[in-house]
Formats: sequence, structure tokens, C-alpha cells
Amino acid sequence: MAYELYYWPMIQGRGEFVRLVLEEAGAHYVDVARGPDGMAAMMRLMEQAEHPPFAPPFLKDGDVIIGQTAAILLYLGARHHLAPRDPAGGLWTQQIQLTLSDLVAEAHDTHHPVGVNLYYEDQKGEARRRAEDFRKSRIPKFLAWFEGILARNPAGDGHLVGPSLTYVDLSLFQVVEGLSYAFPKAMERALGDAPRVAALHKAVAERPRIRAYLKSSRRIPFNEDGIFRRYPELDG
Amino acid sequence: MAYELYYWPMIQGRGEFVRLVLEEAGAHYVDVARGPDGMAAMMRLMEQAEHPPFAPPFLKDGDVIIGQTAAILLYLGARHHLAPRDPAGGLWTQQIQLTLSDLVAEAHDTHHPVGVNLYYEDQKGEARRRAEDFRKSRIPKFLAWFEGILARNPAGDGHLVGPSLTYVDLSLFQVVEGLSYAFPKAMERALGDAPRVAALHKAVAERPRIRAYLKSSRRIPFNEDGIFRRYPELDG
Repeated sequence: MAYELYYWPMIQGRGEFVRLVLEEAGAHYVDVARGPDGMAAMMRLMEQAEHPPFAPPFLKDGDVIIGQTAAILLYLGARHHLAPRDPAGGLWTQQIQLTLSDLVAEAHDTHHPVGVNLYYEDQKGEARRRAEDFRKSRIPKFLAWFEGILARNPAGDGHLVGPSLTYVDLSLFQVVEGLSYAFPKAMERALGDAPRVAALHKAVAERPRIRAYLKSSRRIPFNEDGIFRRYPELDG
Repeated sequence: MAYELYYWPMIQGRGEFVRLVLEEAGAHYVDVARGPDGMAAMMRLMEQAEHPPFAPPFLKDGDVIIGQTAAILLYLGARHHLAPRDPAGGLWTQQIQLTLSDLVAEAHDTHHPVGVNLYYEDQKGEARRRAEDFRKSRIPKFLAWFEGILARNPAGDGHLVGPSLTYVDLSLFQVVEGLSYAFPKAMERALGDAPRVAALHKAVAERPRIRAYLKSSRRIPFNEDGIFRRYPELDG
């Protein structure tokens, strides 16, 4: 039976981390909310499920519904050989994913520092201040952490965990994609100081299934409704 | 061998979610950074560990180092019978914890909407706007979600998951504690609409080990350096 992915149909957003894992795994899945009546089905599940997700994305696998991006990847990683099998390695992989989640939340808050219920236009001044701190302090700090993990990986610096691809390599790829879209100037500088991160990003983009996916209509283009938004006034 | 918990020594912060689990479990642990040379030991591990945590808290159990609060609780919950044994139940518990983590991050950002590297005094205006959105929209939305989970729990509304205490009950207790400290007026209203959440908070506080812990010097009082800060101008 195909997985059902539920996420806002017009943006990559947090759903994209799940899509990349499903695509790399070659798994059968339906992106439900992008199909007919999909949004209604999504809302119905959020209201009526015994285990209701707080927010999209969530994944339905038969009777199991899983919300929270990191929890979905924990589930899929184990099923599709995209995570180490040993418990300590699995936990370390999840720890990296949770740190990526923190970075994604901070990236979102650069354009919504005052609140998700207000428009960007109503918080532009605050956004400018927050984005400056994010560019100058947070991006370099996070990238240095990923660079250090790659450098210290006893199995080589081609992957974050162990000798082969895991879901956090895919997630780091997506974060670099998103930050490079939103903050092209800042990211060009930051990636210069994180060559292993840049190389991993390039290697993931060249994987056959990922390359095919990125060219397909299944990949929604970045836009200014998503998490990563290109507002030139926030870059620098 | 005792667990070693590493966290900033002057605040409850995210470390408190780990402390509550260790206390309820009756586990032996050392709160390392509160002891002599503890801060230096914490910094050393963050710089030198093969699996370096991005930020405190982190837990050391023999050779294993685990960062990210939710990952630490995933680990401890399984070891101390504070999580369901079945995989689907374990994942559901973790999903709730990740949603609690999101709420904690939003609570933090009420006083630091522009950035963690600036003082509160330098972002008071932005904080006032963000706190208003948080009080009026976010707190009620999150509490309604927890209330709904309690109401729908087939094993009864005394716990979030299954028929007995899990780590997310402890975490929800702590979030209610913290929000009630930071936003006493807003929380009094919000808890009136979430009677099951209020009852769970009360029941956790009365558990013998938790009650003993809360009275002990191991419990650091809330203060204005932590995540939950009482700034009267942000409540209302």
C-alpha cells in the first residue's frame, strides 16, 4: 500500500524533508493534499484522528499516522535503510535531524519574528533585525557544526553518519538549498567556510533519484509562501 | 554508573525536562555543570566529542553522549518505563514531545523575537508584539491540542499516552509550570478552557518523587535568565 503524505500543496516547506526521503527510497506515495479533495481529507484527519497531528506534514501508513517531520524521518529511515541499524547510531542521526529542525525554525522566523499570524509586511522592520543576526551569527554557527561532524566521521567526510547515505544527508541538502535560495549572498560566504557541507550538498543533488525528482513537476519551486523566502532586503 | 547531565547551571531551561524524568525514575545522576569545574567539562565535551551536541542539555551514559532534549527523553523513556513499549506508541509519545519542544521554543521567542544574541532590553517592543500573538493565539491552540489528546485517550484522560505516566506527562507539567510563571494572567484563562491539562499538571506535582524534587535545592527557581521569564509587560 502506498504511503499517504499530507502537507500544504503550494510549498516545499517541512513536507519537503519527507518527500526527499520517499523519493530517494523509491517508495510509492501519494501527496494527498495536491490531489482532488486532498485539503479536505487533510483537515478531516487533523480533527478526527485518535492521534491528531498538531500541524502538517504528517504521514499515513495504513492505520498509523505520524506527525512531526523528525518523527516521520525516524520512522521512514528505519524502514528504508536510510538510518543506522544500531540504536546509538539511530539516536545520533535523530539528534542531527532535530538540530536541523531548529535551524529550519530559525530560518522561518527571519521573516516572521513577531508571529505566524501576521503578514511579513507587518513585521518587516523586526525581520530585518532578526535576519541580520541569523546571517551573521546563526548560519555560520550551524554550518560549522555540520562541517565538524563531517570532518570527524570515522567512516569518512562524505556523509554525516557512517559510510552511506542517511536521512540527515538529505535534510542537510534541503537546508542548504533553502538557505541558498533565501540568502544567496550570505550562503555563498558561509559555504566557503564549510567545504564538506558544500560537497555533500552537491553529491546529494547528483544522486539519480534525487536528480530526477528535482527536475520533475513533483518538486514545487521555492516561493515566498514557504519557509525559505527570497526577500533581498533580508540578505546581505 | 550514574548518568551525567550537562546543562547551564543557573536555569531550569531545557535541562529541566531531563531532570524531571531522572527524578521520577529515581535514577542516579550528576548535574555536572552545577559542580566544581563542571562548566569546563561541559565545554570540553561540546568541542571534543565524536558526537558533539550543538547545545546543552546533553546526557552522558557511559560512552554514549546524547543531545537534543527530545532525543534524550526518547532514550531515557525506554530505559525507565516512561514510554510505551510498542513502536507505534513510542513514536506517538515522541511526536507529542516534539510538539512540546515547538511550544517551548515559541515561549522562549516571546522575549527574544529578534535574536538570542541580543538582550531583552534591546528587543522589548518586538517582544511585546510577539507575546501578544503568543498569548492570544498560540497558547490556546497548543492547550486545546493537549486537551483533545487527553479527551481522546482510550485508556482514560489522566495521561497523554496509555494508562500510565510517560515522559510527555512530565514535560507537559513543566510547560504548564513555566507558562504559568511567565504569563500568570493568560494561563489562568487558558487553563480554564483546558481542565484535563490542569488536572494532569496537578497530579504530576503530587507524585511523591516529583513533590520531593520540587521542594529540594536541586530544583532551580524560575528566573529571568531562563526560557520562561516573568516580564509583566508581556502578560495580559
